[in-house]
Amino acid sequence: MKKVKIYVTLRESVLDPQGSAVMGSLHKMGYGDVADVRIGKYLELLISDDTRDIDAYVNEMCHKLLTNTVIEDYRFEIEEAVSQ
Amino acid sequence: MKKVKIYVTLRESVLDPQGSAVMGSLHKMGYGDVADVRIGKYLELLISDDTRDIDAYVNEMCHKLLTNTVIEDYRFEIEEAVSQ
Repeated sequence: MKKVKIYVTLRESVLDPQGSAVMGSLHKMGYGDVADVRIGKYLELLISDDTRDIDAYVNEMCHKLLTNTVIEDYRFEIEEAVSQ
Repeated sequence: MKKVKIYVTLRESVLDPQGSAVMGSLHKMGYGDVADVRIGKYLELLISDDTRDIDAYVNEMCHKLLTNTVIEDYRFEIEEAVSQ
């Protein structure tokens, strides 16, 4: 099995109201050193070793379902899954 | 400025209905090689260089606001923010 870690972030030009809200809360709690907060998604997929071109496979899933490429960027890493 | 990247994941023992739903959709779309999907959060914080013990600072924010340590694990990386 391969473990694929996908990081999805809002594009720089897109406002992040959720991040702003969290930053507001942090400031109210006294964490004034925080200058910016951006919130994204983190996905972990387990994919069979039989998959031929895993890079293309993951890119296709990201484009079709997992991300909104109009407002989001993504990057991913593929590693050997450690059996448990 | 320091950029702190925080990865928040559900603990292994906790069910992930959102991940299951996404996996179901992927299977219906023909991506049968996907054996598991877990969905977490990814946060990017910008923190002032003046902060004395940034590790402790981030851990405190994670425990108090950013994560729910009962059901979530987190890890973070600190790097120099590239000025834009």
